Amino acid sequence: MSHGGDIYRNKVNMDYSVNLNPLGQPEDVLNEVKASLKLASHYPDINQEDIRNKLAEMEGLDSSFVYAGNGASELILAVVRALSPKKALIYEPAFSGYEFALNALNLADHEKKTTKSIEMIRYLLSEENGFKLSEEAIDAVQENVDFLCIADPMNPIGQNIDENVLISILEKTKKIRTYVLLDESFLFMSEKADSVNDQYGIKKGIIGRAELIKNYDNLIIIRSLTKLLAVPGIRVGYVLSDPDNIRKIKRQLPEWNLSVTSEAAIRAGVSLIREGTFVGKTLDVIRTEREFLSRSLREMGIKVFDSDTSFLLFESDVDLYNKLLERGVLIRDCSGFVGLRRGLYRIAVKSHEENEEFVRILNEIEGNK
Amino acid sequence: MSHGGDIYRNKVNMDYSVNLNPLGQPEDVLNEVKASLKLASHYPDINQEDIRNKLAEMEGLDSSFVYAGNGASELILAVVRALSPKKALIYEPAFSGYEFALNALNLADHEKKTTKSIEMIRYLLSEENGFKLSEEAIDAVQENVDFLCIADPMNPIGQNIDENVLISILEKTKKIRTYVLLDESFLFMSEKADSVNDQYGIKKGIIGRAELIKNYDNLIIIRSLTKLLAVPGIRVGYVLSDPDNIRKIKRQLPEWNLSVTSEAAIRAGVSLIREGTFVGKTLDVIRTEREFLSRSLREMGIKVFDSDTSFLLFESDVDLYNKLLERGVLIRDCSGFVGLRRGLYRIAVKSHEENEEFVRILNEIEGNK
Repeated sequence: MSHGGDIYRNKVNMDYSVNLNPLGQPEDVLNEVKASLKLASHYPDINQEDIRNKLAEMEGLDSSFVYAGNGASELILAVVRALSPKKALIYEPAFSGYEFALNALNLADHEKKTTKSIEMIRYLLSEENGFKLSEEAIDAVQENVDFLCIADPMNPIGQNIDENVLISILEKTKKIRTYVLLDESFLFMSEKADSVNDQYGIKKGIIGRAELIKNYDNLIIIRSLTKLLAVPGIRVGYVLSDPDNIRKIKRQLPEWNLSVTSEAAIRAGVSLIREGTFVGKTLDVIRTEREFLSRSLREMGIKVFDSDTSFLLFESDVDLYNKLLERGVLIRDCSGFVGLRRGLYRIAVKSHEENEEFVRILNEIEGNK
Repeated sequence: MSHGGDIYRNKVNMDYSVNLNPLGQPEDVLNEVKASLKLASHYPDINQEDIRNKLAEMEGLDSSFVYAGNGASELILAVVRALSPKKALIYEPAFSGYEFALNALNLADHEKKTTKSIEMIRYLLSEENGFKLSEEAIDAVQENVDFLCIADPMNPIGQNIDENVLISILEKTKKIRTYVLLDESFLFMSEKADSVNDQYGIKKGIIGRAELIKNYDNLIIIRSLTKLLAVPGIRVGYVLSDPDNIRKIKRQLPEWNLSVTSEAAIRAGVSLIREGTFVGKTLDVIRTEREFLSRSLREMGIKVFDSDTSFLLFESDVDLYNKLLERGVLIRDCSGFVGLRRGLYRIAVKSHEENEEFVRILNEIEGNK
């Protein structure tokens, strides 16, 4: 399975295949990262003391509930290893990283020749229903499923999970001892960022999940700052879970997994988020531009799926991937996602200037068909 | 087990617990890393194409024999997972990272409750024999040992493995299908850097291992640039092995494991090494300063073990760790290493100015006992 962002083997002027904050990199973050290079002559703190404290304080948790990683991809692998499930359920379509991690564990088992592989079950969400994760889908979580992967918002769909459905899942899985990996990589840039804040009465810009973590010791949340801070080249993610789970996850990570630049990006990111206006401004521009793109695409007769975040799934009968690439625009062809078919594409929500240019190019292509 | 370099929970003016190039960070490397931050808005290349080509060219191998990692610690974990041994042999004393990785795999198995753990065998090298890895030690590699960890030079001893002993190990293990993890994290800063170059007729400064990799498909070499370039805060390592092994190892690594800063440090490091004089200069200063420190310590009546690299193991009946720390000097207390006893310490070989100050302080402490 390929990923977005492959600018290394394509000639790309506009990358609509990765979903980063349309506001771009905050200057403070880049400055702090630059300044951190003077620390490159020291090993990073093997205990992540300062970083864990800062993240924990932001989340309203004790630092024993938090661990930082060299990007979300490192943490997904470590979580899967730490919990070593026997039967995993993935709601598809989903980010391929969960399957990558489960396969890695299977390959290690295969090498040993002594272990049964992880059984992987896929629950295909229906296109007619807009790929919504509904109460019905929860029935698929049977007694013997010990690991469940979900994302909020889902990727590549872009919809937030209904909070009541999420709570139903957590209640059921807590009872039958199923671990839930909740991938919130894009949560900071989704509509739920506002509503969750309202729910927990937390200042706009900080997304409270402390209550969930404290109530459900079977829940593992993965967060990313990569998207919000627009720094995918500097790897920054973190995991929130019960201290017992965190201890297990830490044992599956390299002893020094964070570089000083990752540490600095987290430090700067936390300051920026706590300052209060940055996430709000980000949500505003994403909402405005998502609506602009949806409307423009729909005006061309394109079917656009509902999204609550910084990317959009849509349908076209034109070979858009190649036709756009010819014009230097990289988008995500979604036919490789399990449960999605040819003709579905994902685009990022970018700045208004870029989005206008994108719409112009797309109009040209769709008009010529 | 603790590690060196814990400046976060100690008040330290001089860190003699980590072993970095006494020449310090080359300016070119830092400049290239700084410049790489303008790429932070892009995902790193998921295939590491440019980086693998550059490393492979330096090593005289095809790029399919090479993969880069976020430090050697990430690669050790990935190698252990990729090969998933059943019975591992470690020559002690050794870097604790091998045991950390084997334990991580055991913990994952334990979680699954279905698998037999990895059996770990320790072969204790004898102190009377100066902890030398001799032909005798090879007898410990029995048929059912499927994984062997060695380091060249050994850490915390500092001695290079006799090249004939290494070849004997590789011949034997190739026959009985035992994988050998050869940790060459400090090879660039050891005497063998010169002699291996002579052996393969390679320009001074580039250490040829291409012949070994091509001849022994059971061999996995891990290298680090962290020590040579003095950039432990930027994580940089790489692995050399048969393409089949590399493919397996890649599947156990996060999909984007390198940050743009790690990529840049590798790129700059390769240029610097290939330019030819940097490794030579490094070896010169390490040799001079190692001899200065050895002589000075021996003049105080301290027993110093033979070393071929940038650190020294020695014995003192004074509680040196604490007495030096009181004066802001951090050294490595080696009593936590399996096979080493209380009273053994490891120090780095640093610049002449620092070494003179270190000897002055040590003289004061040893003189007062």
